[in-house]
Amino acid sequence: MRDFTYETPATRVVFGAGCAGRALAAEVERLGAGRLLIVATPRTAALAAALAEGLNVVAVFDGVREHVPVETVDRAVELAERSGADAVLSVGGGSTTGTAKAVALRTSLPVVAVPTTYAGSEVTPVWGTTEGARKTTGRSSLVVPKAVLYDPALTMALPARLTAVSAMNAMAHCVEAFYAPGANPITDLVAAEGVRVIAGALPAVVAGPGDEAGRAGLLYGAYLAGSAFAAAGSGLHHKICHVLGGAFGLPHAETHTVLLPHVAAFNEPAVPALRTRAAPALGDVNVADGLTRLIARIGAPVSLAGIGLARSDLDLAVKLVLDKDLRDNPRPVGEPEVRRILTGALHGRLPVSTAT
Amino acid sequence: MRDFTYETPATRVVFGAGCAGRALAAEVERLGAGRLLIVATPRTAALAAALAEGLNVVAVFDGVREHVPVETVDRAVELAERSGADAVLSVGGGSTTGTAKAVALRTSLPVVAVPTTYAGSEVTPVWGTTEGARKTTGRSSLVVPKAVLYDPALTMALPARLTAVSAMNAMAHCVEAFYAPGANPITDLVAAEGVRVIAGALPAVVAGPGDEAGRAGLLYGAYLAGSAFAAAGSGLHHKICHVLGGAFGLPHAETHTVLLPHVAAFNEPAVPALRTRAAPALGDVNVADGLTRLIARIGAPVSLAGIGLARSDLDLAVKLVLDKDLRDNPRPVGEPEVRRILTGALHGRLPVSTAT
Repeated sequence: MRDFTYETPATRVVFGAGCAGRALAAEVERLGAGRLLIVATPRTAALAAALAEGLNVVAVFDGVREHVPVETVDRAVELAERSGADAVLSVGGGSTTGTAKAVALRTSLPVVAVPTTYAGSEVTPVWGTTEGARKTTGRSSLVVPKAVLYDPALTMALPARLTAVSAMNAMAHCVEAFYAPGANPITDLVAAEGVRVIAGALPAVVAGPGDEAGRAGLLYGAYLAGSAFAAAGSGLHHKICHVLGGAFGLPHAETHTVLLPHVAAFNEPAVPALRTRAAPALGDVNVADGLTRLIARIGAPVSLAGIGLARSDLDLAVKLVLDKDLRDNPRPVGEPEVRRILTGALHGRLPVSTAT
Repeated sequence: MRDFTYETPATRVVFGAGCAGRALAAEVERLGAGRLLIVATPRTAALAAALAEGLNVVAVFDGVREHVPVETVDRAVELAERSGADAVLSVGGGSTTGTAKAVALRTSLPVVAVPTTYAGSEVTPVWGTTEGARKTTGRSSLVVPKAVLYDPALTMALPARLTAVSAMNAMAHCVEAFYAPGANPITDLVAAEGVRVIAGALPAVVAGPGDEAGRAGLLYGAYLAGSAFAAAGSGLHHKICHVLGGAFGLPHAETHTVLLPHVAAFNEPAVPALRTRAAPALGDVNVADGLTRLIARIGAPVSLAGIGLARSDLDLAVKLVLDKDLRDNPRPVGEPEVRRILTGALHGRLPVSTAT
């Protein structure tokens, strides 16, 4: 047994196909709220309105944008204040939940989250906004949604391509939870189960997106992933992804997908739990191979070049990653290591675990 | 994936040998508290005072009694109010934590808990008090300790005999979590790990109470057990134990130890997870056998008669158990079933799983 500190916010999760429609009114009532601000994307706004039918929706903000730009949050906060909303209903993926959380940080309004992807953000105290090319993140119990409605039925229409990368984003939360600063025996347990559930369900769902049991598994895995990440915190992988998203506008989930095997291959020699717990949960002898095989099987992106990073961006990317505090990584990481990881990911090379 | 609702209170756990002495001041400061009421037993009061050295202790209540009698709580509450305490420091086993929680329920004071046994009560929203022969229990987020300091060093002196039954009390939380009303995939995961950790560590610690790694394992297992129980809630086993403790004054942990294999044997045919998850974690093919073998190995009590229940108490015990609401048990349970379970436990018969 290693020493640890483990802090968890109060959470309330309702899980089940159809639960969002059935349970929303009761959850809003539990909060003592009666004036809802809907936060959604243009794509999810209609779904949000349908779920909230019969409830008192005082305003709808459907201007969510990826990476949660500060100007977007400003507009949503203004709408919250102008409408006298007393709760936020967020319906959408990670950027939607992220926008609702940023609104909560500024207004202290409670959030009811209905996630429609596998981002996992709905159970973490982490918030993040982007100003210009710079992503700022922080932690606050204020932003943790007071209730989360996990409804696999709402994820059935998520296209196979998006399903693949969104689930790999959840997988990244699990993998990183094994060595991020707050990692502890509980996050190990939850993360290993998350890896097992996601790896077990993902290929079948990508092959047949209508697989109801598989969809429920992925959403459950995303919840486990978010829970583990909430306590374990961010490590090298997330720091690199934030740089690439903020500075180069790379798509969030795709960036996670491409980078994960490379960072895992780098850290694996220094993190026994990756080999003893994550690899078996992937059904492989090491994590880098297991992730690489899984990504190949689901046809997800394997190079940063393929998702929009130019070769000429590499030096700046390396510099920006090194600007982050990387001292808590389990394996010492400096300029050559960051360059090696990013170069491999840029070109989609096969990641290989190397001894420390 | 089955549907579920999972609600957890905010928790903060610090785990590690020596952590209570090192971290207490910081945890009290995090609460913004500065006037401590110590709640302890005559045996743990000196330890509590030593841990709180340098902090502002405004009152000490060392009159904790088993089963948390209401009069005891009255006296502690009066002391809390008279002394102007702004936080409770609880140092002791389940009855001590239980008394502190009962004080919190009445005063809204935050509790910092330092458990010295494996009762697990420090992470649950369950409170319980006894008035006359009747135990009353309830749930409230008010009573959940704001911080828990798990310090295995403080458990080293727990005698082998007490260690055995206290750990079996924790085991009962895990086993019951597989079928209690709030059971869900997360409580299954946590409970299975709890069973594995406790069953793995207990025989070695009973054989050699100075086993530091084993002690850490047991305390970690007790934490897992409490967490699973907190969400899953009480089932048949706990209801019977409450009756026997409240009405006949049987010792709490010993009662759990004796009854657990009998209730598990009865419910096992109706709860697949007991066979598929709990039994393997015990290293056995069924839970009843696994528990029976473990109890034999650690030399813990195997009959209610041996811990103070008279044969002439049986009819009243059966009646009092049937007064409880048993409808949520996974296997229908009426007078003949309760009588069979209690008779078997009274005489220390070998529990046998029987088909439904």
